[in-house]
Amino acid sequence: MLAITGIDPNSNSPIYRQLHGKIKELIDSGDLGQGSRLPPTRELAGLLGLNRTTVSAAYNLLEADGLIEGHVGRGSYVRAISSPSGIISFATSRPSEALFPLEAFRATCTEVIQSAEAQNILQLGSPSGYPPLRRYLLDKAKAEGTAREDDDILITSGCQQGFDLLQRVLVSSGDTVIIEDPVLPGLRNVFQRAGARLIGIPVGPDGIDLEQLERTLAGERPKVVVVTSNFQNPTGATLPLKNRQALLRLTRSVLVENDIYGDLRYAGDPAPTLKELDETGGTVLLRSFSKLAFPGLRVGWVIGPRALIERLTEAKQWSDLHTDQLSQAVLLRFAQSGRLAEHRKRMLEAGRERLAAALHACRTHFSERTQFTKPQGGMNLWVSLPEPLDAGELLQRAEREGVTYLPGKFFGVSKVEANSLRISFAGLEPSRIEEGIAKLGKIFKARETVRQEPIPAMV
Amino acid sequence: MLAITGIDPNSNSPIYRQLHGKIKELIDSGDLGQGSRLPPTRELAGLLGLNRTTVSAAYNLLEADGLIEGHVGRGSYVRAISSPSGIISFATSRPSEALFPLEAFRATCTEVIQSAEAQNILQLGSPSGYPPLRRYLLDKAKAEGTAREDDDILITSGCQQGFDLLQRVLVSSGDTVIIEDPVLPGLRNVFQRAGARLIGIPVGPDGIDLEQLERTLAGERPKVVVVTSNFQNPTGATLPLKNRQALLRLTRSVLVENDIYGDLRYAGDPAPTLKELDETGGTVLLRSFSKLAFPGLRVGWVIGPRALIERLTEAKQWSDLHTDQLSQAVLLRFAQSGRLAEHRKRMLEAGRERLAAALHACRTHFSERTQFTKPQGGMNLWVSLPEPLDAGELLQRAEREGVTYLPGKFFGVSKVEANSLRISFAGLEPSRIEEGIAKLGKIFKARETVRQEPIPAMV
Repeated sequence: MLAITGIDPNSNSPIYRQLHGKIKELIDSGDLGQGSRLPPTRELAGLLGLNRTTVSAAYNLLEADGLIEGHVGRGSYVRAISSPSGIISFATSRPSEALFPLEAFRATCTEVIQSAEAQNILQLGSPSGYPPLRRYLLDKAKAEGTAREDDDILITSGCQQGFDLLQRVLVSSGDTVIIEDPVLPGLRNVFQRAGARLIGIPVGPDGIDLEQLERTLAGERPKVVVVTSNFQNPTGATLPLKNRQALLRLTRSVLVENDIYGDLRYAGDPAPTLKELDETGGTVLLRSFSKLAFPGLRVGWVIGPRALIERLTEAKQWSDLHTDQLSQAVLLRFAQSGRLAEHRKRMLEAGRERLAAALHACRTHFSERTQFTKPQGGMNLWVSLPEPLDAGELLQRAEREGVTYLPGKFFGVSKVEANSLRISFAGLEPSRIEEGIAKLGKIFKARETVRQEPIPAMV
Repeated sequence: MLAITGIDPNSNSPIYRQLHGKIKELIDSGDLGQGSRLPPTRELAGLLGLNRTTVSAAYNLLEADGLIEGHVGRGSYVRAISSPSGIISFATSRPSEALFPLEAFRATCTEVIQSAEAQNILQLGSPSGYPPLRRYLLDKAKAEGTAREDDDILITSGCQQGFDLLQRVLVSSGDTVIIEDPVLPGLRNVFQRAGARLIGIPVGPDGIDLEQLERTLAGERPKVVVVTSNFQNPTGATLPLKNRQALLRLTRSVLVENDIYGDLRYAGDPAPTLKELDETGGTVLLRSFSKLAFPGLRVGWVIGPRALIERLTEAKQWSDLHTDQLSQAVLLRFAQSGRLAEHRKRMLEAGRERLAAALHACRTHFSERTQFTKPQGGMNLWVSLPEPLDAGELLQRAEREGVTYLPGKFFGVSKVEANSLRISFAGLEPSRIEEGIAKLGKIFKARETVRQEPIPAMV
């Protein structure tokens, strides 16, 4: 409940301004933590005896301040801006803005806008992407072995658009698509909304379950198989080399390799991408700058056979003409200047510490019957509580204690793991990770020890 | 044909570098004008006795230089960068980059990236758009009367994405959609690719033909009717006030108002938007910064009833998460600082001159039997040659003379006007407009005076 008192109808300041100030104080003080939901305007108006439009006006001001944001169909939430006193959020798989190399970004941006190229950047561009960026990424991929002579590249507005364009070009209503289970909702929803028939294949510690995939492929002809090679979202699982090779032998459909986290390996040796191992050349590789650098700049890319890239490029043209060129040029310069590599070093150091803190805290604070994955990179790990615990039900309790996460049910495809949850650790400092997981451990253990009463027979 | 000689296989410079240098010279000198098509790599390799990969490598370098760009299925073209000696292109409806206020853009961008807000801009944002920009645009629309209390706004990656999201939310395969005929291909293709049944309603000097629309609506239940209120692309036509009112009375379907050119009125008085006149509040309004300011920054917006905006926002989320935030923040600052208004003044001055030059040249150089529209703003006018002249056939001749345009057939929906063409005048200086239309007039008149031989009866 919001503790709002002292609104004065006789003040010179309009009531919506006063209300805006009160809520802002609660956010600034951390009493209303990041990710908290604000009451619906109608409800708050009723409670405070105000007009609903007054409450709306206050919310609008807060939104204009960037303090809250509206989510479709879910109401208004306090924006996740790291605040030491706010809620500890394990809910979002994204880099911490505290680690953004702001000075390097500013220097890069200044170089780009001061250059003679600025005029071209501001003019209408190509659906394929900003030519110098395309060239840079394709040359790099060829040098690394992840692009072949007959491959081409399309710049997308982040990986999400890559999935969307692949759906549009390859998958019609009624077609079968195989994806990992659990998987990030953005990927599942793209194909689901298109009317595809989704088959989820379980993900274990070594990534997608190849035995089950093989059994499924014996009876199905999916249009597309989407697999995450490194640090899968939400499980953190990575496919070992031999599984990659086996997967390529198994799959006759178009194989889409989602490798958005591959650059964030904190330990162990990287395996070659599926794209690199695939001697048929048919695999489609999706990558992005968003997890490593600046997610607010929407630039990702797809590498695949030239004929497919042409079809995707045409679909891209009718989707949004082309990806924003300022961000493409800034990210190119950021990479070419060596600043991206410098930044990556710091991201890897920070990620290593954060992952270690998360794993240590899980070992320390979770019960023996609780399982969790042990990723070597990325941003997420997957916790499975002893059944019949329900991570969705426990979330309310956790939020009251100042910790939030996404329950497993958000990630389900063919099955729902109600007892699981995703811990996105990369956005938090080690001390906050420790603090948050300690709180979760206490909440989960308390529920585990409650004797589950047998359900009486219905008579 | 490309005049390429003097490639030396014994030089220290690799052949692809030499070839790159030769073609670059031709582009720099204007011998290979903007918009010219390069021969396919296979063809040029054959002509020069080179390996095809050598030619590809040279093209790749040219693309990396930003000198050429590939178009899906159409080969490589010299990028349209204004060069006084190059081809005169009436082919693209976009602002001239020579008019970009580069210093104002640089100052704006610097203010944005130096501000404390930079950190938030670079972090993952909201599918609805950057909150301060949403607020600014919605408040402005409310003040102008183009948004109602129950309306909301969604920021899109340009208007093209607005059309695409509307299709995804409102139109399924087999549904009927009414659009203008002729119309910009990007709008037609969005609905066509979705399997919609398109009905094109002719556009006259006063915009969409209301009598024919009424007759069509008597027998059809379209899901969506898309109409351009101001300076329609490609015709330049504007709906007078009484037609706007009549259109609102006629239409029971969702009415989508494409108003991307409305800010570019060079003469006459503006009429209220359909959105403003629509007392039911159901009209959906699409606008953009792209025609006025910087098309390379992909920011447009949709204003409509809250429930529809929620559905569009959800579709947006699965399309690309959200629109690039750096460009949203830069354009907001550009508008709020008053620089956009300053720039608009200069764009209106330049546009007025260019439109006048285009109309004067059409009157002077086209035959009496040639018709052309007389827009009061925007970027395009529509020329109809006396039949049976074919503007597509005449284009090759025009390109040999150094002038290019888009023939009417690109814009057809239910009928193809083979005798028509679009003149996009806004990107060229008055002297170039005069020069280009003079050349076209000469070519067209020469063909008009050729006696059309009667076709012999088939026996």
